[in-house]
Order: sequence, then C-alpha cells, then structure tokens
Amino acid sequence: MKLWQKKTKLNPRIEAFTVGDDPVLDMKLVKYDCRASIAHAKMLEKAGILDPNESKQIESALKKIIELHDSGHFIIEKDQEDCHTAIENHLTESLGELGKKIHTARSRNDQVLAALRLYYLDEISRIESAIHDFLRAMHDLLKRHGSIQIPGFTHTRKAMVSSVALWAAGYAESMADNLRLVHTSRDLMDQSPMGTGAGYGIPLDIDREYAAALAGFSRIQQHATYVQLSRGKLESTLVHTLTQVMLDLNRLASDLILFSEPTFGFFILPADFCTGSSIMPQKKNPDVLELVRAHYHRILANEIQLKTQTGNLISGYHRDMQTTKKPVMESLDLTLNSIAIMTLVAETLDVDKEKCAAGLTPELFATERVYELVRQGMPFRDAYRKIGGEFE
Amino acid sequence: MKLWQKKTKLNPRIEAFTVGDDPVLDMKLVKYDCRASIAHAKMLEKAGILDPNESKQIESALKKIIELHDSGHFIIEKDQEDCHTAIENHLTESLGELGKKIHTARSRNDQVLAALRLYYLDEISRIESAIHDFLRAMHDLLKRHGSIQIPGFTHTRKAMVSSVALWAAGYAESMADNLRLVHTSRDLMDQSPMGTGAGYGIPLDIDREYAAALAGFSRIQQHATYVQLSRGKLESTLVHTLTQVMLDLNRLASDLILFSEPTFGFFILPADFCTGSSIMPQKKNPDVLELVRAHYHRILANEIQLKTQTGNLISGYHRDMQTTKKPVMESLDLTLNSIAIMTLVAETLDVDKEKCAAGLTPELFATERVYELVRQGMPFRDAYRKIGGEFE
Amino acid sequence: MKLWQKKTKLNPRIEAFTVGDDPVLDMKLVKYDCRASIAHAKMLEKAGILDPNESKQIESALKKIIELHDSGHFIIEKDQEDCHTAIENHLTESLGELGKKIHTARSRNDQVLAALRLYYLDEISRIESAIHDFLRAMHDLLKRHGSIQIPGFTHTRKAMVSSVALWAAGYAESMADNLRLVHTSRDLMDQSPMGTGAGYGIPLDIDREYAAALAGFSRIQQHATYVQLSRGKLESTLVHTLTQVMLDLNRLASDLILFSEPTFGFFILPADFCTGSSIMPQKKNPDVLELVRAHYHRILANEIQLKTQTGNLISGYHRDMQTTKKPVMESLDLTLNSIAIMTLVAETLDVDKEKCAAGLTPELFATERVYELVRQGMPFRDAYRKIGGEFE
Amino acid sequence: MKLWQKKTKLNPRIEAFTVGDDPVLDMKLVKYDCRASIAHAKMLEKAGILDPNESKQIESALKKIIELHDSGHFIIEKDQEDCHTAIENHLTESLGELGKKIHTARSRNDQVLAALRLYYLDEISRIESAIHDFLRAMHDLLKRHGSIQIPGFTHTRKAMVSSVALWAAGYAESMADNLRLVHTSRDLMDQSPMGTGAGYGIPLDIDREYAAALAGFSRIQQHATYVQLSRGKLESTLVHTLTQVMLDLNRLASDLILFSEPTFGFFILPADFCTGSSIMPQKKNPDVLELVRAHYHRILANEIQLKTQTGNLISGYHRDMQTTKKPVMESLDLTLNSIAIMTLVAETLDVDKEKCAAGLTPELFATERVYELVRQGMPFRDAYRKIGGEFE
Repeated sequence: MKLWQKKTKLNPRIEAFTVGDDPVLDMKLVKYDCRASIAHAKMLEKAGILDPNESKQIESALKKIIELHDSGHFIIEKDQEDCHTAIENHLTESLGELGKKIHTARSRNDQVLAALRLYYLDEISRIESAIHDFLRAMHDLLKRHGSIQIPGFTHTRKAMVSSVALWAAGYAESMADNLRLVHTSRDLMDQSPMGTGAGYGIPLDIDREYAAALAGFSRIQQHATYVQLSRGKLESTLVHTLTQVMLDLNRLASDLILFSEPTFGFFILPADFCTGSSIMPQKKNPDVLELVRAHYHRILANEIQLKTQTGNLISGYHRDMQTTKKPVMESLDLTLNSIAIMTLVAETLDVDKEKCAAGLTPELFATERVYELVRQGMPFRDAYRKIGGEFE
Repeated sequence: MKLWQKKTKLNPRIEAFTVGDDPVLDMKLVKYDCRASIAHAKMLEKAGILDPNESKQIESALKKIIELHDSGHFIIEKDQEDCHTAIENHLTESLGELGKKIHTARSRNDQVLAALRLYYLDEISRIESAIHDFLRAMHDLLKRHGSIQIPGFTHTRKAMVSSVALWAAGYAESMADNLRLVHTSRDLMDQSPMGTGAGYGIPLDIDREYAAALAGFSRIQQHATYVQLSRGKLESTLVHTLTQVMLDLNRLASDLILFSEPTFGFFILPADFCTGSSIMPQKKNPDVLELVRAHYHRILANEIQLKTQTGNLISGYHRDMQTTKKPVMESLDLTLNSIAIMTLVAETLDVDKEKCAAGLTPELFATERVYELVRQGMPFRDAYRKIGGEFE
Repeated sequence: MKLWQKKTKLNPRIEAFTVGDDPVLDMKLVKYDCRASIAHAKMLEKAGILDPNESKQIESALKKIIELHDSGHFIIEKDQEDCHTAIENHLTESLGELGKKIHTARSRNDQVLAALRLYYLDEISRIESAIHDFLRAMHDLLKRHGSIQIPGFTHTRKAMVSSVALWAAGYAESMADNLRLVHTSRDLMDQSPMGTGAGYGIPLDIDREYAAALAGFSRIQQHATYVQLSRGKLESTLVHTLTQVMLDLNRLASDLILFSEPTFGFFILPADFCTGSSIMPQKKNPDVLELVRAHYHRILANEIQLKTQTGNLISGYHRDMQTTKKPVMESLDLTLNSIAIMTLVAETLDVDKEKCAAGLTPELFATERVYELVRQGMPFRDAYRKIGGEFE
Repeated sequence: MKLWQKKTKLNPRIEAFTVGDDPVLDMKLVKYDCRASIAHAKMLEKAGILDPNESKQIESALKKIIELHDSGHFIIEKDQEDCHTAIENHLTESLGELGKKIHTARSRNDQVLAALRLYYLDEISRIESAIHDFLRAMHDLLKRHGSIQIPGFTHTRKAMVSSVALWAAGYAESMADNLRLVHTSRDLMDQSPMGTGAGYGIPLDIDREYAAALAGFSRIQQHATYVQLSRGKLESTLVHTLTQVMLDLNRLASDLILFSEPTFGFFILPADFCTGSSIMPQKKNPDVLELVRAHYHRILANEIQLKTQTGNLISGYHRDMQTTKKPVMESLDLTLNSIAIMTLVAETLDVDKEKCAAGLTPELFATERVYELVRQGMPFRDAYRKIGGEFE
C-alpha cells in the first residue's frame, strides 16, 4: 500500500511507468531514511506528538530495519514504490497504530530529501578521502621518478623541457584545488529540509533545528519554498564538482595513453593492467585509462540532465525532480571508482628513463638559449628572433 | 576465459573496473550476435574456411544458444566480460576445435557493432510502429473532441481561439514529420560493419556483401576506417531522433499538465492515472506526464554523452566507444515506454466542454474583429490600432 | 515605431534588454524577408486584398530595399527592433497608406520564420556544396599519396598496417554519408509557415500553397500549431547535422595534429599554415587544426541550447524562441568556414614517405602472420595464441 | 607584426580563420593587460632585467594606453591578432629598444591568462554586488506585499496556502546561497599565472609572488603545469556559478509569467514592461521575463562548451583553449543584465489582492484540516485518510 493510497487504484501500466527504478536505487537510502526518521521521531516527542515510550519504540523498530537491511533481508516491493513507503509499512506492521503517527509533521517530499542528503554527505566524505589517497599516490610517484626529465608539450608539439615532478605536481595541485569545490558542495548540501513538508511548511509547532541537529545536519533551510528550489540545484553543484575531479583524471589518462604508446614510451603501465585484442595478438591496450577518460563524459551528461530538467518550471515540487536521483548516484559511483583506479595506476606507474632521454630533442632547448642571450643583455624580442631564425 | 586472454592475468581490480555493466547490458544482444554469427559462418563457408558441414554445425549450435537465451538459461559470467566471449566460449565447449574457427575474418570490434546495429534496427522498427499507434490515438482524440474550442496561447497569454482539433493536429503533424528522421536514422544504421575487423580490414579474401545480406543489412560500409569513425556517430543521430520524438511528448505533457490544472481545467486525466501526496489528502497529481516530460532531458543528456565522448580523439577504435552502448539502450527503452504511455493518455483523455467555453474570454476575439474591419476595407495596420486602443 | 506599438512606450531599460542583438543579426535576413514579402503581396492580390497595381508597387519597393541593402545602405535602427519592422516602416514611408496593408494575413511570427527558413535553406545549399569541395580535395589527396602505407591505430596503439588511401577514404565516406542528414535537414526546413499568423491561423480566406510556392518552399506546414512546435526543433536537426560534419573534421584535425607532430611526422602541414609562440622561437603550431577541433564543441553547445530552450514549455510561441536565431547563424558560419579551411588543408597536405616507412614497426604485422597460419589450416584461435606468445 | 612573427608570412585565409573575433573581444582586456604588465615590469626591475628608470617608462607608457583606451582611441588591428600584440607593438613604437624587453620572463600564454583573470575577478565583484541589489529588491517586495496569501503549488496543482512572503523569501534564500559559489569561484580564479610562461616555467630567477601581489592576485599557482590544466576549468566553475544564479531567475521568471497570466492574475507587471503583438491588438507580453528564462539556456550551453572543449586532450596548452574566452564573456554579460533586469522587475512588481484571494480555493486547506484532527489526537495516517475520502 502506498503512502497516498486511497480508494482508486492506480492503472497498472501507469504504476509500472511511474515506479521505474526506485525500488532498486532506494536500497542505498534505507539506512539514511531510518537515521533521519529516528531524529524525526525524537522531534515529535519534543513537540508532544509522541510520548517518550512511543519514540523509543519507533527508534528501536527503525534500528531493526537497519539491521535487516545490513544483513540483506530488507526488501522494497514494486508496489511499495520506494524505501520510504516500505519503511513506513514495516513500522505499521510491527508497531500497529503507532506506525501511523510517524508521518506526522512531514511529507514524503522532505523525507526523501533528508535521506538523499545524508547519503550524499556520506559520499562526499568518501570522495574527499579518495582524493587524499590519490594525492598521496601522486606524491609517491613524484618521489620515485620526479627527477626524470621529459618533454613538455604545447599544441601537441615539443615546447620546453619538463620533468615527471613538474608533470605530476601540476595534476596534484589541480586535484587539491578541487577540494575547495568539494567543501562548497558539502556546505550547500549540509542543510536540513526536515519539517518543510511539501514545500509550504507544516501546520504544527515543531522544532526544525532540533531534528536537523539530531539527524546530523549543520543548519536548516529557513524557508520551505527554498527546499524545493534547491532540489536538483544543490545536486548539480555536487555533480559539477565531480566533473572537475573527473576532468583532471580525463586529462591525466589522456597523457598516460599517449605517452605510454611505444613511439614515445615515457610511461609504462603494469602488464596486468592491459587488455588484449581478439584479432591482433600483440596488443596491450590501456582500456582502464580509456574508461576513466570516458566516464568524464557520462558524468558531464548527468550534470546537464540535472540542470535542464528543472529549467522553465514554476516553483514547487514536480515529479520530474525525482529523476535527479539516478544520475547523481551513478556519478558518485563512477567518480569514486575512477579516483580509486587512478590511484592504483599512480602507485604502480613506471617511467622509462631511456625513452624519456631519447625524447629530449634539441628544439626543446631553444627557449633556454634565448634566455642565455637575455642574461647576456640582449633584449628579449631580439634574442627570440635570433634563435628563431635557426628554425625557419 | 576472454577472447584475447594469453598468459598474463588481468589485475582483478582492473578487471572489475573494465567489465562494468556489460554482462547485464549484453543480454539484449545475445540473439543478434548469434544471428550475425550465423551469417558470418556462411560467409566463411563461401570463402573456403569452413566446409558446409562445419558451417551447419555452427549454425545449429548458435540457434541452440538463442533457444537457451529465450528460455532464460543463457548466462554471461563476469569473467567472460560480454556476450561475444560467452557465445564463443559456448561454441568451443560444444563444438571443440571447430569453435576456434568462428572468429576467423573478424574482430570483436566488428562483431560487437554488427550485433548492436541489428538490435538498433529492430528497435527503430519498434519506435516507428509506436509512433503510428500514437498517431492513431491522436486522430481518435481529434474525432472524439476536435470541435471543442479552446483558447490558443502565445507568450503564455491568451491569443486567439483554437480548438482541440487544431491543438491535436499540430502534435500529430510534428510527430509524423519525426518519421523522416526515423527513416534517415535507419538508413544510416543499416550498414554492415562485418568483415572490417579492428578497423583496418582482414588479410583474407572474403565476401562482405554476402555476409551483410545474410545478416539482414542493406549495404556495407565500404572502408574499414569509416566503421570506426561511425561508432557513436550513427548512434548520436539515432538518439537525436529520439530527442525530437521526446520533445514533442515533453511539450504535449506540458500542455496537459497545465491545462488539466483545475483553474483552467480544459483537459481531464482519468482518475486512475493520478497519484496522491503523502501529506495533502486532496492531491491528484499527473506524475505520469511529469515523468514523460523529465525523460526528454535524460535522453538529451545521453545524446550529449555520445557526442562529446569521441570528440578530440584520433581515428581508430578506443575503448571509450564501448560506453556508448548504455545510453543508447536506455534512450530507446525510455522513448518506447514514453510513446506507449502517451498513446494511452491520448486514448483516455477527456475534455471538459464547460471549462473550455469558460476559458474563451473576449480578448481572444480581438484579432477577428481587426479582420472584420479589414474585410470592410480598412488597411490592416489602422484596423489593428483601432481595436488595440480598447485594450490600453 | 514598432509593429505592435500603441500608446504606452516601452521602458527604455526593458527595451534595450529585449531588442538585444537583433538589429545586427537581422542584416542577414533582409533580402529573405523582402523575397517572402513579395510572395505574400502576390498572395494578397490573389485574395483580393490588394489590387494588381498595389501588389506591383509593393514588389518594386521591396526590390528597392534589397538593392539598398546590397549596397550597404539599408539600416536597422535599435528602436525598430528587427529587420521586419524596419522593412514595414520603410514601405509605409515610401508607399503611404498602401504600406499599412502589407501585414494583412500574417503575423510577425510567421513572417520571421519565413525569412529565417529561406536563409537557412540557402545556407544548407552552401554547406552541401562545401562538402562536395571537401570530398574532391580528399579524393585528390588520396590520388597524390594514397599508396603510402601508414600505421593503423586502435586504443592509440599500433594495430595493423593502413594506408593514406584507407585513412582518407574513411573520412570521405563518413562525410558523404553526412549528406543524407543534410538532405533530411533540408526536407524538414523546406516547409512554409506563411499564413499561419501567430500560430492559430488567419481569419481570412487565403491560399497558403500559392504564397509558399512563390517564396520557394516545396510544401506548407498544414497546421498553424505545428509551425510553433517546429520552431527551434527543425533548427536543432539542422545543427545536429552540422555537429556530424564537424565531428568528422574534429577527428580529422585530431589525426593531423598528432601525426604531424615530428616524433611521428607522417603528415606535413605547409609552413605558412603554422603559427609561432611568443616565447619559444622554434614552434610551428597547428592552430588552424586546433580551432577546427574546438569549433565542434561550440556548435554542439549551440545545439544543446536549441534543445533545452523549448523543453518544459507549453505549446504556442514564446519569446524564448527568438534566441534560437543566433546559435544557428553562428553554427552555420563556423561550419562553412571549417569545411572550407579543411578543404584547403587537404589540398595542400604533404606526406613524409620516410617517416611513414619508419613507423611501420614489426608488431603491425602480427595479425597478418596469424592469417598466414590460418591459410595453412590452423584454427584462428590457435594461430592467434601461437603468435601472441611472442609478444608476452 | 605578431609577437611570434619570423620570416614566413601566414597564409591570409589561415590568418583570417585563426584571428577570429579576438580583436573585438579583447577590447575588454586592454586595461587588465596593461595593469598586469605594469606589475610584470616592476618584477623585472626587481630581477635586474630592467633598471628603475626603464620600469618607470614602461609604466607610464602603459598608463597612457589605458587612457587612450578609455577615450576610445586604442585600436586593435586585425593583423595584430589580439590586445597583447597591439600593446607590445605600441610599447615598441613609443619606447624603442626598451619595448622589446617587456616580454622577458613571460609568454603570451601566461600574459593572456593574467589579463583574463583580472577581468573575471572584476566581473565577479560586479555579479556579487548585483546579487546584493537583487536581494534588497526582493526584501522590499516582501515588505510591500509579503502578507498577501497565495496558493502554493506542487505538480502544478494547488497544494497548500503560501504567501508572497514565503514565495519571495525562498528565492532570496536560494540567491543568497549562490554567494557561497560566487566566493568559491573567486577563490579559484584569484591565482596568479604570471611567470609560468608557456606552462613549463621561465629559465630565469624571478619573484612570482611579488608580481602576483602587485597585479592584485592573492596567491600564485605553484606549478606551471597546473596553470594550463586550469585553463577553461576555473572558467567552468565560474560559469557553473552563473548557471545557478540564472536557474533561480529562470524559475522566478517562470512563476511570474504563469501567475501574471490573467486567469491566475496574482502578479501584475508594469504596463511599460510589456510588449505587444504585430497581429493581436490586445496582447501584453512578458518578453522581458521570457528572455531571462531563455538566457539560462545560453549560459548553460556556454558552460558545456567550456567543459567538453578540453576533454580528451593531453596536458599543456592547446589553441582550443582560446575559444573559452567568448562564452565566458557572453555569460557574464547576460547574467549581469539578467540580474539587473529582474531587480527592476522585483522593484516594480505589483500583487493583485483580489485575484490572490479568489485563488485560495478549498482544497488548499485540506492539509490543515488533517492537522486539526492530529491536534485532537488522531494518528496522522488515519486523519489523512478521513479527509482524503472527501476528495475521491
């Protein structure tokens, strides 16, 4: 039975269409919904809707659901639509009349968002810690091979002498700067929607700050209408952040794909990282890097979906917003996996000193020769033209 | 065992990362791969690689796999990566040495594409027939309620008198025009990649036209290099086509959402199409329409992924291209479901005559009054200014 | 004075904001608007709104405007908003009362679209002929250097032997296939909106086919409501087509950038095509190719704008749609310029035989060696594993 | 003469193609380039490349250029490509040999970025102050009309009673939260690229912090390679920020468009904000709001361009990156104009009390009636079903 079920039954084709993937996707949200519901019950106790004993019973029933879920025994049926219904139904079954009180002072709308945001906040912490692992791996790579000189390119043409250190440090600095965005994403996401109902508040006197603090939020969204305006929007800043992380990995993968190609051969991927071809027996292909490169585009597409979906709509909740869940979840998974795999790559990457040395062809030193003349007092532009003449 | 497996085993974390969703997604491709492989075997017979008896054995083994799959007994193991490996492994198990010959004159590269395109071509036919069903339903709607007058809007402001007929016919004409794109998508997709190997041909004398015709393709891609350039590209035209279909449905859903809102109330959705709210007991929400509207954006995002993924890459196959499969499959599913559900909506939609009549307020007739004056001989611009004066 | 001007003057800040770039962009449309207006006047004559003499006068006044425009003397003032107002005002000034009749049986809405579509159709012809020039240049390149062997790559790794012929022919075949989309774009665009007014028809008996044929359209859009649904939509198919052309050029440019890099050095760009660096005197940079590569992304972004802009909107005209003009115009310009410049590149490209020969390293021949064993009777998969053993 | 000009002249067609719009776009950068160049000259003085007198001369010549530019007399010729060349050429003309020294210890690459970032930082301040103006206007609106009750909608259906205060406060809170992103954008942008040359440093001992501080940057990018990785990337965070601001305005405009439509009629736009129709004399169209709504999509498209352009490219500068300038500039202009115009709308918006009262139909009070029963002790879900029965 659905939370909103009354006499008329939903047409079965419409039901199949509207339920979609939710029962599967929501398995990730069960524990967060229970956690928020425990906070909600304590707030209802403070408001006098539940007595202390009732609140306790609800808390222990919700903890039981978390245990069931952890052991793989909590199931969301198709006709329950989502985890929120499954959990309320479970409460009503185990607690009888008391279960019917848990939805007081909330709507599924703010309930869904509370669970989603607690989940997103946990994932953001995972992203942050994965970035720190990556930075450590890049630093180790830099310590292992940093002093080896390699050609620096501009316009895919040899430009000036670079080094493994300069190359790796650039990526590390860029990735470290991404943490600023990660923190802003968290600051924006870390706002409680609890107690805003369907976007126009609850006609009861409740303590929203209290519920928020118990659930683990740092602050509340003041105005119920902002909660609905922020749905999909805060997610889009989160996924934007993921695209920035992934862009760095995309560029890093692009470098490694090209410069481990044997004609250059500066970098060497471990043999057991490479896949083969079904027709060409010699092939050692960097599929792992190509997939990291590719995932950038998937995540970018997800961001675009988030951003176009709510455009041109009036304010207030629309069902369209529920489809923002899947692209965010997918983007988080792909990003976490990609950071972890590139950390593994950084940890195991080898550098071929001889190939690097062979790559240091004379044109890479032209600018240094200009600067020798500058140090001897020649105006820069004259020195530039003098050396440039040799290359025409 | 993978098709390209040699001595070195793939690192398990790399393997998990690279295999991804393929074993699940590829369940849709099993029968198409078998169908193309039967054609391939016959071509090998013609080329003298297989004798007629061998070709027969392979054909019946592949038909057996189709049966297994139809009855839900064909399984793709994670370590087989994809349906192509699972099928070749199955052949080798059942046919011994003979199974090792099936991959002659092809690469997994052209094999995958052949199966995908046969699948896409079948789906395109399904889309086409779903569109025809939709057109029929719109035509019936027009016959049921066409003569009822409704306000026509520009700038979300009442403009001139329209009718259910004019409203529905505009959508039908737009949808019918989409069929031109559907056909172009099919023409582009209906090209055989078979026998182009990894993108540089096969060092054997083979009859590509023969294999193509047996598999059901109308023509072949002449140059092996084009096959790789077209991967993701032909798909992007297909998904562009889907976005055009979905844009019409998005606009249609937008009209129905607004004009079934009781303040206007021109249209009435069946009660069993509407969902409720967990907090507001009176709500009858058009979730089904909102989700159709939302799916447009998912499909558009998928198109963008297809288009950005291969940009800036040199020619020749890259593993990145394999990630184009999921967004195309998802877009086809969502579009087919959305057309079907909007067909159901069109079949059951009701029109509220009284609300429509009440909506026909005087300003809708201002332009007709201008034209009365024009018919009496007044220059248009003067008539316009005369009537316009009344509204200032 | 604006076409819709009555007593209330528009707030000057609002006016500046709403007029935007139109006076500049519309300079491209003047002659197309005049051409459509001549057809419109003849249709009004047929409908008895104008007498033959009036129609003649209007025709010659409009031809005069085309002349003025061709000689650079037709100006669109900011306060006229757009070319349509400027032209009607000009007619009213030169023809007095008669000028006030020209807007009979049309709205600026269908008028704008008629001019835009005639302009787009002309541009589509230019694109088509630019593609033919490009195909000729690729064919000449193939004749000059086709027989030179080059490495074929997959996964940015050497795969099998290719040739300049196979490489160039793949691009040519891909570009030729784009013509199918070009033709579909034209078929869709080649529909007259004339006489549909603001999207709900004209309260007069007019011959829309007659006007369409005179203006040069092949058919009419039957239902006035379809005209508004198609705005931005037909444009998005056109710009999708441009992205397909540009993707081929993006990939071609990517090949040329990498393989003219001296480490590979297969291709040589003319010296006077390369730009330098302000600091590194040796640099010869392929900016021209990098910009072609980049323009793909601009045009793709423009397509996305077209596709997201009208999503989630109810049917009927919205001012939002007017902002579709700029991205289409820009995309057409960039595509035409890019095809022309890549034609020039193809015409002048040189191939370095020695560098190509040096690139043909042994692993490129591994597959051929497998097939030698196949020809001797060994099952493919055994031959593959035998040769593969040498590369582990 | 270009900075990198040597003997070979660029092919004129290539030159026209590569120069593109830069001479026009760069007019916005002249003063920022001069400001950064003054800092650069002082750094060169500190490094002993220039003596104090030379540095002074350069400073006063650059200030002269700013004056020329402010008075409209500084021109960038097509063959100078960009403002950087025009400025260096001007210095060389006015200072002779000394002018040839200014380019010591920099590349056009870091020079362009320094000027662009100083310009972006100024624009970010303008955005921030425009947001504060908007917040003030919304606050005034709230004070003028906040107490008026209006219907709150979910799923475009009446949900619960809202008010002008709750409606306006939601937008204000959302916009205020955007300031967090504005600040993060600034923090990321506020990093000096000066002295990193073409991305691989300068072979001279220079004080990058000194130059950065003089130019007005808070910190430097430590590694020259990061500078190139950040090009386009930092811009994409800036434009993402603009999309968040614009999404709020898009939603606000959507509300105002629908709810100022006379059937609802809650809001009233000033008459001199509305445009008319060329055919329908009664029309008062909210073009201004529709254009704000539309600009969201343009800016989103620009963000996508920034994000796809550098994907799949190896590290190091590519000319592609230069095309990121135009979409950022355009996005800043459109956003600033849109905030300003919506501030004007908020300042002048009227609310129709009677229409609002008429909109408060009974179903809006159903949830309050549920909560009356809850306050009397009925479990929420029972109360919900009791009241819900009345609406079936």
